[in-house]
Amino acid sequence: MAARTVKLAVIPGDGIGPEVVAEGLKVLSAVAPRHDLALDTTEYELGAKRWHATGETLPDSVEEELRGHDAIFLGAVGDPSVPSGVLERGLLLRLRFSFSHYVNLRPVRLYPGVTTPLADTTPDDIDMLVVREGTEGPYAGMGGVLRKGTPGEIATQDSVNTRFGVERVVRYAFEKAAARPRRKLTLVHKDNVLTFAGELWQRVVREVGEEYPQVSVDYCHVDAATMFFVTQPHRFDVVVTDNLFGDIITDLGAAVAGGIGLAASGNINPEGDFPSMFEPVHGSAPDIAGQGKADPTATILSAAIMLDHLGAADAARRVERAVAEDLRDRAKDAVERSTSRIGDDIAARVAEQG
Amino acid sequence: MAARTVKLAVIPGDGIGPEVVAEGLKVLSAVAPRHDLALDTTEYELGAKRWHATGETLPDSVEEELRGHDAIFLGAVGDPSVPSGVLERGLLLRLRFSFSHYVNLRPVRLYPGVTTPLADTTPDDIDMLVVREGTEGPYAGMGGVLRKGTPGEIATQDSVNTRFGVERVVRYAFEKAAARPRRKLTLVHKDNVLTFAGELWQRVVREVGEEYPQVSVDYCHVDAATMFFVTQPHRFDVVVTDNLFGDIITDLGAAVAGGIGLAASGNINPEGDFPSMFEPVHGSAPDIAGQGKADPTATILSAAIMLDHLGAADAARRVERAVAEDLRDRAKDAVERSTSRIGDDIAARVAEQG
Ligand SMILES: CC(C)[C@H](C(=O)O)[C@@H](O)C(=O)O
Ligand SMILES: CC(C)[C@H](C(=O)O)[C@@H](O)C(=O)O
Repeated sequence: MAARTVKLAVIPGDGIGPEVVAEGLKVLSAVAPRHDLALDTTEYELGAKRWHATGETLPDSVEEELRGHDAIFLGAVGDPSVPSGVLERGLLLRLRFSFSHYVNLRPVRLYPGVTTPLADTTPDDIDMLVVREGTEGPYAGMGGVLRKGTPGEIATQDSVNTRFGVERVVRYAFEKAAARPRRKLTLVHKDNVLTFAGELWQRVVREVGEEYPQVSVDYCHVDAATMFFVTQPHRFDVVVTDNLFGDIITDLGAAVAGGIGLAASGNINPEGDFPSMFEPVHGSAPDIAGQGKADPTATILSAAIMLDHLGAADAARRVERAVAEDLRDRAKDAVERSTSRIGDDIAARVAEQG
Repeated sequence: MAARTVKLAVIPGDGIGPEVVAEGLKVLSAVAPRHDLALDTTEYELGAKRWHATGETLPDSVEEELRGHDAIFLGAVGDPSVPSGVLERGLLLRLRFSFSHYVNLRPVRLYPGVTTPLADTTPDDIDMLVVREGTEGPYAGMGGVLRKGTPGEIATQDSVNTRFGVERVVRYAFEKAAARPRRKLTLVHKDNVLTFAGELWQRVVREVGEEYPQVSVDYCHVDAATMFFVTQPHRFDVVVTDNLFGDIITDLGAAVAGGIGLAASGNINPEGDFPSMFEPVHGSAPDIAGQGKADPTATILSAAIMLDHLGAADAARRVERAVAEDLRDRAKDAVERSTSRIGDDIAARVAEQG
């Protein structure tokens, strides 16, 4: 059988981005031939360096090229030498918005052997899937400033929530919940204060929920949710939430599930109208860049989410198993390994599985 | 010396509100005469019962009466029988906004003897003061709905940030930071995405900070802040943040500092143009109401914040000492005490201090 070719756009980005992406690709290269996949990768130099050199974050022509790929694999963008937000909005958020990545999928799972900052907490307690909306809410970039620099200055920041945008992500979350053993969906919002947006989210969850009678639906204010993430993480199975609340609770989720070095994500356009994008939740961590200290695990797990999205579920499970074994043994071995060594070890485990 | 009379408006509210407020008043009654204070309390029945009976949340005439008090002592409002938000906005937020409670002061402190859900964390690690803005941001209630109930529906929710509103709370936070041993102020925001509001907050912190060269200033994105709250809480001394981020991180702060049963707050108008309001961070907890199970400690600590605000710092310290002793002994005794028993014990300790 001829291998299926996956056209993969690679954006290593800034800081530790290139280091962790290299390991992700290493593992992908190990797993692909075993599942009849061939990777055809094209690297794009986007990020701080390009911005300094040319002032560009994402030229239209590059966006157009990216569009022709099956998926995008991204390390991290952002650098202290670039004003806050320029690369995040000009590159990362632009891709999420242009390519309609309305599902920002972020599993929060404590792997056996991994140390959590929470006392008395085991892997059984933390196994959730956060479905964060990715294309609207407070991330819409709407708002403005009036009378800037005067005592009467006003700055507004508007959250935009559409029936269209909320419904599609809520439906995706119900599908995910229906396919998991616990079949529970929790909406996280702040509907007692953000009444316009909150009422829409609640109503859509109620209406779409009628099509999924097998899924039990719960609601939790975002403030209370952060508390439950540390005191009763077992409350949550699938969580659906808006772009900003999702940003916040998934960082917290990463922290309780063993740290940002393990948190994976997919920016997904489920219909495949545009390439989806896979990246670790962490940033570019310039303080440890170039030292081989970064943990590539989050990137490798993001590659697994990508494989799932590309319809290669067996390959995804293989990568996850290799990571799980590696994490289990880390606890025992307690030796510091470099970024590339961790990648080597996980790639080797992928191969060993035969 | 004649005792100074404090005109105190008491709003017990819903659920466990009346139970915990009773204990707060018990402790206040024990401490007041020892510091030449006389309490003149007037109770206001506001909350779910009144809303059901009359449809009122806060009649103008009652607001006017409240205005004539030195302070307001509130238990909790909210009940499942009332639509989400009606009492929160109609009563709680209305008071915060009408009475210009622009400082929502929330200490996050782990008392010795208290169990935290974080492993390897001691009281030295958690001692911060969150200064949450209380009168604008996403809580302004602005926004709206277009084409409701149709596929083209849009709901917006607007965060309003004024130079006036941001500056006054930032200045207050710098004052607090300057008076603490570590003299550190961290702005928590999300300026790489919420650029209009974030730039204003950053600029105001920079400008006001010039007047406080002794205070070191740090910045942390809200998502990262939730992570650091559980992995490195020691990073934070005074935190200043907007209304919504403050809501979220103080619930998380409560969780890491031993739970919502201990988290106190003051809704403060520093100039004293309006009465300030003191309340536990927790809600009305209808599930345990009327059973004597609620922990009144958060309310008692809120009374201490009130005493501080009223200029009775010695009395405030006395209450805090009594609470600290009680918390220390709880760890040893491990007996379940009722709400009123905890109040009795803390009141007795207040008296014992002579
Ligand atoms: C870098 C930033 C714009 C981004 C976000 O806020 O979405 C990041 O925090 C994330 O969670 O992917
Ligand atoms: C009840 C609710 C409106 C309130 C808030 O969001 O401010 C509460 O969560 C709090 O933190 O005091």
